[in-house]
Amino acid sequence: MFSFTQQRALASSGAMRCLQARVLMNFCSQCGEKVRFAIPESDDRPRYLCDACGTIHYQNPRIVAGTLPVSGSQVLLCKRAIAPRKGYWTLPAGYMENAESTSQAAARETWEEACAEVALANLYTLIDLPHINQVYMIFKADLVGGFAAGPESEEVALFEEDEIPWDSLAFPTIEHTLRHFYADRHKGLYPLHTGVITPEDRERYFGSA
Amino acid sequence: MFSFTQQRALASSGAMRCLQARVLMNFCSQCGEKVRFAIPESDDRPRYLCDACGTIHYQNPRIVAGTLPVSGSQVLLCKRAIAPRKGYWTLPAGYMENAESTSQAAARETWEEACAEVALANLYTLIDLPHINQVYMIFKADLVGGFAAGPESEEVALFEEDEIPWDSLAFPTIEHTLRHFYADRHKGLYPLHTGVITPEDRERYFGSA
Repeated sequence: MFSFTQQRALASSGAMRCLQARVLMNFCSQCGEKVRFAIPESDDRPRYLCDACGTIHYQNPRIVAGTLPVSGSQVLLCKRAIAPRKGYWTLPAGYMENAESTSQAAARETWEEACAEVALANLYTLIDLPHINQVYMIFKADLVGGFAAGPESEEVALFEEDEIPWDSLAFPTIEHTLRHFYADRHKGLYPLHTGVITPEDRERYFGSA
Repeated sequence: MFSFTQQRALASSGAMRCLQARVLMNFCSQCGEKVRFAIPESDDRPRYLCDACGTIHYQNPRIVAGTLPVSGSQVLLCKRAIAPRKGYWTLPAGYMENAESTSQAAARETWEEACAEVALANLYTLIDLPHINQVYMIFKADLVGGFAAGPESEEVALFEEDEIPWDSLAFPTIEHTLRHFYADRHKGLYPLHTGVITPEDRERYFGSA
């Protein structure tokens, strides 16, 4: 499908990774005809193209928004009731929806997964996962009132620092966020931390990237 | 298509706004059959659904990543050569692509629109535009070397504070970022600023939201 020159350009620009990461598409969502995957004119990376109606189907990363809910000296974690990483502990987080803000998405996910109301503080971690087209945005938050397992959680509980189940965390983004929190807590300052999760980081959790 | 109860639930949850903001879809991109737009079982908002193959087509907000390139006392702006807001001034920014990080996206867009290499500092503004399903992320950056108009710019130039074309800026996100910058510059501190652009803010620029 690609010429040698195109393949070399793709590999060198890093865009070859798009080939693995893209959502597979067979038909045009506008006109229903078959699509092909190629580099459009005056573009530098492959897209799904419809020759019948001319639509170029762009695909872009998704935001996973969530919170680090704090209650006194404890933080709230959720045990996942669904794949991936069922049975492992996570912070409440999930895909941001259309028509909401990042902070609304974080609060909504906390409500859905932990039945917990939170007062959001600042954006605390912003973590890129380029190989799976995700951007994590975790807000520091104060837990307001109670909590309970939502439909996607087996269990929701508060943890002291020495109780954190480090070996049973669901995702590297969660470990990074918690490690930053306990390092920052001594100083009482919680600035934004940014980072990138590599396929190797992820492999430690999933067995494969 | 929606029952009264569904319509009331949608309106009260704010999900009604999804109806305007969604990307229209006629056919399933997996199997090519017609899709319908309805609330899936155990969900709370409408999605495009394929009854033939069972695919639920989720749609999510997109990230617009860019930079505020600083050179001494000046900032770099680009005059747009394309719609929307052709002829108006903007910071270099554009849609984040799959397989890249937010900072890579910001640097790439700066290169494409202003032929400018930048050394990225911190994430400076994070601005939600929920009514058009966008999240702006502008990084503060130092301009390294020269610049020139890329294919999407008519002109690229450096501006002192009293030269900023406030009445000819392309988007409210750009105005907010520049106003924060000049307020912060006196203190020499550039912390992350977050905000939300409303349809009314946007109407001042576009004549309509």
